[in-house]
Amino acid sequence: MDFNTKYQEFVRLIETELEKAVPEKKPVSLYEPFRYILKGGGKRIRPVLSMIACGAAGGEPEKMAKIGAAVEILHNFTLVHDDIMDDSPIRRGRQTIHTKWNSAVGILTGDLMVSYSCRMLPNHTEHRRCNEIHDLFTRGYIEVCEGQGFDMDFNNNKNVTLDDYLMMITKKTSWLLITATLCGGHFALADEETIDALHDYALNLGLGFQIQDDLLDISANQDKFGKKIGQDIIEGKKTYLIVKAKEKAKMKADVELLDKFFDNDGLTDEYIPQMKSLFERNGILEDAENESAIYFKKAKASLELLEENDYTHMLEWLLNSLNKRAY
Amino acid sequence: MDFNTKYQEFVRLIETELEKAVPEKKPVSLYEPFRYILKGGGKRIRPVLSMIACGAAGGEPEKMAKIGAAVEILHNFTLVHDDIMDDSPIRRGRQTIHTKWNSAVGILTGDLMVSYSCRMLPNHTEHRRCNEIHDLFTRGYIEVCEGQGFDMDFNNNKNVTLDDYLMMITKKTSWLLITATLCGGHFALADEETIDALHDYALNLGLGFQIQDDLLDISANQDKFGKKIGQDIIEGKKTYLIVKAKEKAKMKADVELLDKFFDNDGLTDEYIPQMKSLFERNGILEDAENESAIYFKKAKASLELLEENDYTHMLEWLLNSLNKRAY
Repeated sequence: MDFNTKYQEFVRLIETELEKAVPEKKPVSLYEPFRYILKGGGKRIRPVLSMIACGAAGGEPEKMAKIGAAVEILHNFTLVHDDIMDDSPIRRGRQTIHTKWNSAVGILTGDLMVSYSCRMLPNHTEHRRCNEIHDLFTRGYIEVCEGQGFDMDFNNNKNVTLDDYLMMITKKTSWLLITATLCGGHFALADEETIDALHDYALNLGLGFQIQDDLLDISANQDKFGKKIGQDIIEGKKTYLIVKAKEKAKMKADVELLDKFFDNDGLTDEYIPQMKSLFERNGILEDAENESAIYFKKAKASLELLEENDYTHMLEWLLNSLNKRAY
Repeated sequence: MDFNTKYQEFVRLIETELEKAVPEKKPVSLYEPFRYILKGGGKRIRPVLSMIACGAAGGEPEKMAKIGAAVEILHNFTLVHDDIMDDSPIRRGRQTIHTKWNSAVGILTGDLMVSYSCRMLPNHTEHRRCNEIHDLFTRGYIEVCEGQGFDMDFNNNKNVTLDDYLMMITKKTSWLLITATLCGGHFALADEETIDALHDYALNLGLGFQIQDDLLDISANQDKFGKKIGQDIIEGKKTYLIVKAKEKAKMKADVELLDKFFDNDGLTDEYIPQMKSLFERNGILEDAENESAIYFKKAKASLELLEENDYTHMLEWLLNSLNKRAY
């Protein structure tokens, strides 16, 4: 199996479902931004993951593109609302909804997206595991909301620990990946062990990915990254790097710089090089690299519990592609 | 049956379910406002209506308080988000969530409420009509979003017709009442005719209620009303009164005043008496009274299609109590 080709094949099926998901209806003020956000592209990792997981569990991935699309719409809803809360003007190189229209349109479009995504899930005449799928869907939704809530709370909290951080990213990043893979597993009527393995795969993939994402904020190649280097520092985000540095840094100058970061909820542009040196001096970048690698390894290990097939290999391939990104 | 006593009995069951619905969980920044909004009182019309409808269809109302509470949480979610969009500082005499906390908390609390309400609905092992109940729930949710979308669009539209207005309030006001009553009907395993009758009851009750609400904005007794008289005029809302006046008014001064209203998206305080005279001069207040009465009458007529019992009488009593309010 050529994984790249298969990935693109799944993306096409998902795009078709996403197009079908938005009706030609009024008010235009809601359905137009709904269509706009879904046309913004993105890698469609969650729905594709859902389909690969289905295949890995012995099911037929092509039949669950609609459920995958529902997860993608739920994910996009969280982006629409998060962008309002964070007042982010740009997403995937395009204006965010609340910037192109206004906050009211952003709030309401997001709300509408949730109900449409719920309605795309199978009912009990359509699938035996509909309860599990619905449950995962609303559970993932709750976890993401809580994750965003913790993330916002952490903005005003100087004492965020690594455990707090991991708990927050488990909710904010891993949980929709868990929802995606387990929807795939349940669609394939997977047994409990398979479900557990898919759960651990998604959980650890999310953690590895997020720590790597935090690392890339400071170490990425600006040209390929698409975001400003050091943006997390400017925004005062409690990333892996900051939380770890807080735990490790002992030198007076380092402690003072970190205090400044915490006291001012972030630092201006000109401090980014200093902060980068601080991370380097304290071995934080290697720590992030190592920690991220551990989670990717755990994700990989969980695949060994699955009965091997093309799709279990594809899950490993996906993990490797995500792990290797250096931009 | 003493309807007042029964109403209070139902409210108590619902309050218990609402309390159970919010877990003692972190982040406090989300679960505290979630609890706060549900403790804000309100008449709990939707969940009570759901329970009465269940009884009217021959079911056991006490067993569906949880579904009723789910509808109430969905309704409260719409209030939380609407208050952000309309920037309303006060709701039921208390600070709105985005005022007491901030908009981000308001958006996220609302989002969380949706997922919790979804999870309160029965699954297929718990109720045979779970599909119908889920479907009504997400349909009602979509209708309310669309209604709010049209309401916002109408703010910038001078040509709103009575048909547009009725379509908007059907979505914004009637639909959650329809969701509530039909959830009750389906819970009672009602037949198609009963479902249709309950649908028409809720639809017309909502329309009658909303037109009366529009009328009360100008004609209410300020002491009892709880809202500022003429608030809709200040906010530039396209109410029944305005839309009807636009259709009927021919006198130059009236047309000019209405144009001023439309051009400026509302009028300041001092214009309220002039606007009231305009409504009186053109018979708009009687029109609203008559139109509202017609819908209440239709709602009443739909009850005749139901097999009579205590709860069908209670539906009539509820309709009369809502119809008679003069504040």
